[in-house]
Amino acid sequence: MRLSLRTAEVIAVGSELLGWTRVDTNSLFLSERLASLGIQLTLKTVAGDDRDRLADVFRHALDRADLVVLTGGLGPTDDDVTRGVVAAVLELPLIEDPSIVERIERRFARRGLRMPEINRRQALVPKGATVLENANGTAPGLLIEAGVRVVVLLPGPPRELQPMMEALVSGALAERATAERLYRRVILITGRSESHVEEAVQSLYSSWRTASPPIETTILASPGQIELHLTARAPSAAAAQAALASATAQVRDAIGDDVFSTDGRSLEEIVGDLLRSRHLTIAVAESCTGGLLLSRLTDIAGSSDYVLGGVVAYSNAAKTQFLDVSANLIAAHGAVSEPVAVAMAEGIRSGTSSDVGVAVTGIAGPGGGTPQKPVGTVAIAAVGSDGLARVRTLLFPGGRAMVKFQASQAGLDMVRKMLIAGC
Amino acid sequence: MRLSLRTAEVIAVGSELLGWTRVDTNSLFLSERLASLGIQLTLKTVAGDDRDRLADVFRHALDRADLVVLTGGLGPTDDDVTRGVVAAVLELPLIEDPSIVERIERRFARRGLRMPEINRRQALVPKGATVLENANGTAPGLLIEAGVRVVVLLPGPPRELQPMMEALVSGALAERATAERLYRRVILITGRSESHVEEAVQSLYSSWRTASPPIETTILASPGQIELHLTARAPSAAAAQAALASATAQVRDAIGDDVFSTDGRSLEEIVGDLLRSRHLTIAVAESCTGGLLLSRLTDIAGSSDYVLGGVVAYSNAAKTQFLDVSANLIAAHGAVSEPVAVAMAEGIRSGTSSDVGVAVTGIAGPGGGTPQKPVGTVAIAAVGSDGLARVRTLLFPGGRAMVKFQASQAGLDMVRKMLIAGC
Repeated sequence: MRLSLRTAEVIAVGSELLGWTRVDTNSLFLSERLASLGIQLTLKTVAGDDRDRLADVFRHALDRADLVVLTGGLGPTDDDVTRGVVAAVLELPLIEDPSIVERIERRFARRGLRMPEINRRQALVPKGATVLENANGTAPGLLIEAGVRVVVLLPGPPRELQPMMEALVSGALAERATAERLYRRVILITGRSESHVEEAVQSLYSSWRTASPPIETTILASPGQIELHLTARAPSAAAAQAALASATAQVRDAIGDDVFSTDGRSLEEIVGDLLRSRHLTIAVAESCTGGLLLSRLTDIAGSSDYVLGGVVAYSNAAKTQFLDVSANLIAAHGAVSEPVAVAMAEGIRSGTSSDVGVAVTGIAGPGGGTPQKPVGTVAIAAVGSDGLARVRTLLFPGGRAMVKFQASQAGLDMVRKMLIAGC
Repeated sequence: MRLSLRTAEVIAVGSELLGWTRVDTNSLFLSERLASLGIQLTLKTVAGDDRDRLADVFRHALDRADLVVLTGGLGPTDDDVTRGVVAAVLELPLIEDPSIVERIERRFARRGLRMPEINRRQALVPKGATVLENANGTAPGLLIEAGVRVVVLLPGPPRELQPMMEALVSGALAERATAERLYRRVILITGRSESHVEEAVQSLYSSWRTASPPIETTILASPGQIELHLTARAPSAAAAQAALASATAQVRDAIGDDVFSTDGRSLEEIVGDLLRSRHLTIAVAESCTGGLLLSRLTDIAGSSDYVLGGVVAYSNAAKTQFLDVSANLIAAHGAVSEPVAVAMAEGIRSGTSSDVGVAVTGIAGPGGGTPQKPVGTVAIAAVGSDGLARVRTLLFPGGRAMVKFQASQAGLDMVRKMLIAGC
């Protein structure tokens, strides 16, 4: 009886992945493919071309994980150390496989070339290993049974690695996986801090962890957005999806309308879909966000169906000219004020004859703050198809880019809440 | 006498980095900053929030490297395990630092909030550790001398981590580094493909590699921008900088005006600095870029000095109303055409009384393409302080987001070239 595979570690091999220009993206693909089999990626390592260090991390990975996947370092040169290190650690002799030599020779011959002698190294196979064919390159992959562990070696280039991994996922690895699979749901929240979300939902965590099927939770905070990732492990998709749906409903009950997405859609997509389903159009008046709010709305394919356009009125003169905001109003309240935000939203709505108008005016910094209106102060207004204005003033932490993003997020969210209220 | 730091390992902590949506990009920044001190990054690990596994990899890292940097997992929640694991492995008691509690309380108070009790965890400091102040968040960093090794803990969010690392690079870590340093220059190019850049400069590469000090080159291509990274390793800053300056001049000779930056400034920063130095103002009319061009210009601090504002005219009606583009012109040439682009640039310039007007109109896709004007077709126009219009039509590859970015890049670059020509 062989061990079922539950945990995996990935070791990406290649000194170029330790510099400052390249990240290992293969591991994202591998993580997702492994999860589909219920195999959890528990650790990733990026190692250079140093044999001793690679041997060390490979040995430790074997101690911890059921499955170790090594990517890269299978080329023909001296720098390509993976095959040799794995064979040495597992104490397996490397034996030249004449059928691989022949296959590599044929690959070169098709391009009218003779195989360089160094490529012969790629035909070395640790004794007992299964050879994984590479349709898109010279380096074959390898699958090795190492006691109760499984070790897989894949080439680094994604177009070689991916089809080989797909073949494993529907073949050798599927046979070794448990009946259980992982299913996931991402809940997106805005308008609250991480600690406030945590406070609201942490009593749920422990009940989920002991439920059947159990649900694991990860909370991810970035300015303007909190993500709750729920993962259920279950033998049946139906049971997992039912558990995730009920957990999602509990989060909605605890947090309410600040939950804006439970199906992977972004805030700009949610707002777009609400506008489209209600046959409404929108126009935007921006100051401190400098076009970001509208740029996000127009990132969505098909947004020209509901976005009419907008104005970025950085200067007071532009606010007056394009948005019909009276100079007296600006003089009386300041450009960053609720009356001006409302006037901007009304101005863009009537100027474009849109159904919805939204406006953002604030101080993105680093300059321009005052004791009364420090950097990060933003007034946001929205006027709906009912012609009524909502307005609020918020204070965002962070630098210029963060204030811009959070202000655009708050503007989109005000529109979303207005639309779900039916206005 | 303390050990000089030559090798480092980075451990990124966070289960979210083991999924299929997020890569650890902090390690790129850390690799570069460490290299600037001649410290080589020899291994990267991404660990989840599992205490035992993190303890295991931290212990092994301490066996191998002079410096171990751990990022993330310093938040206030149960998932944030880094502080506790490091203290346990090093057998150091955790002691609450009242000055940190006070600082966190003040941070919350500034936003009118009470500190949640769980944040008190962030004030726990392993005995003997140096506290690294975090200007942009609640989690302080830590530096611990562990025998001859050095251990650094930094928070995960880049805007918190980066300034803290900069402080270490010019302070505590510099004191512990060797005499040799890496010096780097990044040359940014737009308006050419990677192969055209490669063709123009590859004869230079080999001469640099054998020069003294030698210069290594990396080319990085993304849509709309090519980066050449030049790296010199030398004991003296003067020798390295002289070699880099001469290599940069050679690239300029080979490529000309398409080189837009050699000092780290982005294209929007370069355009802003040109406008500011010539006391000129700018306004923008956008269609397919949906506000992105103006949003990029206003990402720069102080941009309100030269940016007057802009209009996003997605609909034809908005082009007519806000930019005074005649409906007949649109009917005759189509909204995506050079005459309409010029009329939009002239319209926004005269409408805002700016010195410079720039306009972008195109088809971002995925819908809206025709055989004559396929998706990716973009007309770009700029009118300078001389009142004369430049215009061109480009065809960009890629999906919606890529077309938007490349079109904004081309618009900014047209303004840049116009300004350096003195117009």
